[in-house]
Parts: sequence; structure tokens; C-alpha cells
Amino acid sequence: MNQLEMKKAAAQAALQFVKPDTIVGVGSGSTVNCFIEALGSLRHQIKGAVAASKASEQLLVRQGIEVFSANDVSGLDIYVDGADEINPQKMMIKGGGAALTREKIVASLAKNFICIVDESKLVDVLGSTFPLPVEVIPMARSQVARKLVALGGSPEWRENVVTDNGNIILDVHNFKIMNPVEMEKNLNNIAGIVTNGIFALNSAATVVVGTAEGTKIIR
Amino acid sequence: MNQLEMKKAAAQAALQFVKPDTIVGVGSGSTVNCFIEALGSLRHQIKGAVAASKASEQLLVRQGIEVFSANDVSGLDIYVDGADEINPQKMMIKGGGAALTREKIVASLAKNFICIVDESKLVDVLGSTFPLPVEVIPMARSQVARKLVALGGSPEWRENVVTDNGNIILDVHNFKIMNPVEMEKNLNNIAGIVTNGIFALNSAATVVVGTAEGTKIIR
Repeated sequence: MNQLEMKKAAAQAALQFVKPDTIVGVGSGSTVNCFIEALGSLRHQIKGAVAASKASEQLLVRQGIEVFSANDVSGLDIYVDGADEINPQKMMIKGGGAALTREKIVASLAKNFICIVDESKLVDVLGSTFPLPVEVIPMARSQVARKLVALGGSPEWRENVVTDNGNIILDVHNFKIMNPVEMEKNLNNIAGIVTNGIFALNSAATVVVGTAEGTKIIR
Repeated sequence: MNQLEMKKAAAQAALQFVKPDTIVGVGSGSTVNCFIEALGSLRHQIKGAVAASKASEQLLVRQGIEVFSANDVSGLDIYVDGADEINPQKMMIKGGGAALTREKIVASLAKNFICIVDESKLVDVLGSTFPLPVEVIPMARSQVARKLVALGGSPEWRENVVTDNGNIILDVHNFKIMNPVEMEKNLNNIAGIVTNGIFALNSAATVVVGTAEGTKIIR
């Protein structure tokens, strides 16, 4: 299987976690796009979805799935999303697509985070292969960058990218994130950071991995 | 002295902390407006100011003071701002004017926070007299409100208010904030909260209080 086939296989396998008559939380990105396509086959069995990005919202509508606002639901059974990296404790780095803030918000609505990835996303230590995205209020860009440098990182401004919330993204290179929960909390306390791409306080419940030998489920 | 006279007296007394040839961090609100007017008398002795709101920026320009962007300075000697409440440990609640995010960012640039208040703002426990403002991404309004209720608060949506960052404000009533540092950190970890109005991690270095008997300085 090539990478796209692994993503499709993981997305298809994730359908088993969708319960009838529920509203499904849906993330964003290329693996999620495969999931949305697969979810179309269940459109008459579910109530609808809450989407973490406008792009996902449009794809859901195209599949005939009703999209609810996050403010209109009191909770979700599952949230399905990809990741840029995931470690053995099912903690993740996300935000390669700049949708981290809305993804974290919709994920926080759900009882269980179902992470769908191809095997290239599995790492031992977060930050090994992927820079950590951080969403920042524009006027705080330089100040936040200085604080990230003080923490040992090498922040790089993702130029020409503005998030759905009107903010900028700094990609932090050279962070080896040995304690993701502590790092997530520390970054949350820096003035001007809206969201950081560590998903450790709310880690995945289940990981569906597309591998060359087929799909594996890690609970 | 009435309340306005106390604010003016505190603002005037704060000028003693302004060093020549520096850029001064300036907050926002009615007491800060008095400070900006007083700062005009030093306009030839300072390099300029960084402002935490557009309103303050305009008032500074009107006083002939050059305004710098937060991204164009590497640090500030002092940041001068008011507070809605301040406790004996010089920790504050801010955000009555909805400028809390930018205020926290500019404050974090400065070595010393100089808080200027009239005596009505002194409290023993934060949250006693003033609801805690929290800036929230609009799509997370309901979810964040539920989490604040779970923490014992009574959030109220400040309708028709949109912050400089395009977000909404929830005012949380009935919080008695016994441990401001812990509460500030906990709120920072809730997905969808951009900034909370507790200034405890970065508390004031000096408080200038306008009282009926004159101005007091608490170091």
C-alpha cells in the first residue's frame, strides 16, 4: 500500500467507532478527507457532524451530512482526526494544516478522540520529525518567538498563513518534547499564544494506523 | 477627593517610575487615560510608548508621543495599567474594558508592572466585587461556559462586545479566587479560552493607589 491507500484504509476502519444516531466530531486534513468520504456511507444512520474547519464542513455537506455548530451541541461521543505525530502514549502534535485551535475545541467536546494516521506518523518522542505549530496573536509574534527560543526552540514564522481566527502560526523546530503534558501547559501560559499543537492533556483514546501490512488498532 | 481625582492623582504619581530615553508600556481604561495625559509632560524625555489598545494609541499620538508596535521592541522597562481588582499580593483582575489579551501581551514585555488604581479597586480576595472576564473563540462559547460552570462560576456572555481580536467575552460571576496563580493556569488550559483576566503569573511590581487622603505607593 502507498501512503494514500494507508490513509484510506485507516479512515475506513474508523467507521466502526461511529455509533448510530450520534453527531460525529470531524477534524481536518488529508486523512480526515478520506474519513469524510467513508462517512458518507453512514449518512442515514448518524444525526450529523461538527467540523473543525470550513474545508471539512464543505466536504461533509457534499456527502449529504448535516453540519452542526459547536455551540449547538452539549457533547460528542467521538472526535475523529489525524495527527502530524503521535507517540506511544497516544499524545499528538497537530496543526500542520493551521486548524489546531478549532480542532482542540471540537476535540474537547468529545468523550473519545479517535486518531487516524498512516504509519509514518508514529514517533517515540514528539517533535522528532515535525516542528510544533503554535497559533499566536499577530502583535505578540516577536515576544512569543523570544520566549520559545528561551525554551530551547527555533521558531519559524509560517509566512502568508492566517488562521481561521485571524492569527499567525509559528513552527517551532528543535523541540524534543520529553514531557508533553508539562510542555502543553507551559506554552498555554505564555501571553499571546492562543493554542499550541500539543494534544497531551486530551490525548487519543484509540489510534487507527494504516500500515503496509494492513490496519492496526491501538487502544 | 472624588474617584476621578483619585485616578488623576495616582496617574500623576506614576510618572516618577518613567525613566528618560525609554519606551513606556501603556495599558488602557479610564485611569490609564489620566496617565497618558500626564505622560504628555514628559514627551521630550521618553522615546515613545507601546499601547495595549487602539484607544490608548490615539490618545498617545494626541499627546505627541510616538507609538511603537509590540513587535518592534525587544522589551520594556515598565508597563503602566489600571486594574478592576487588586489583592494584597499585587495580583489583579483585568478585562473590564475587553482589552485583556493585548494588555497581557504588552505587560509581558515589561520588567515591572506599575498598577495605578483608586482605592475602590483594593480587595482581599480576587472575584469579590468584579466578575472575571475571559476572552473566548466564538465557536467555543457554549463549551467554555460549561467548563466554567463545572469550576463553580456563573459565566455571562457580554453581548454585543467583540474584542480587538474578533473574539467574545464571558464574565464569570461567583468565582472566589483563593489561589490566583493556579486558577490562571487552569483557565489557560481550557480549549477555546484565548486569555483570562487573572494577572497573577505576572503580578504588579508596584501599586500606586489614589485614596481620599492622598496617593499611596505599595512596593
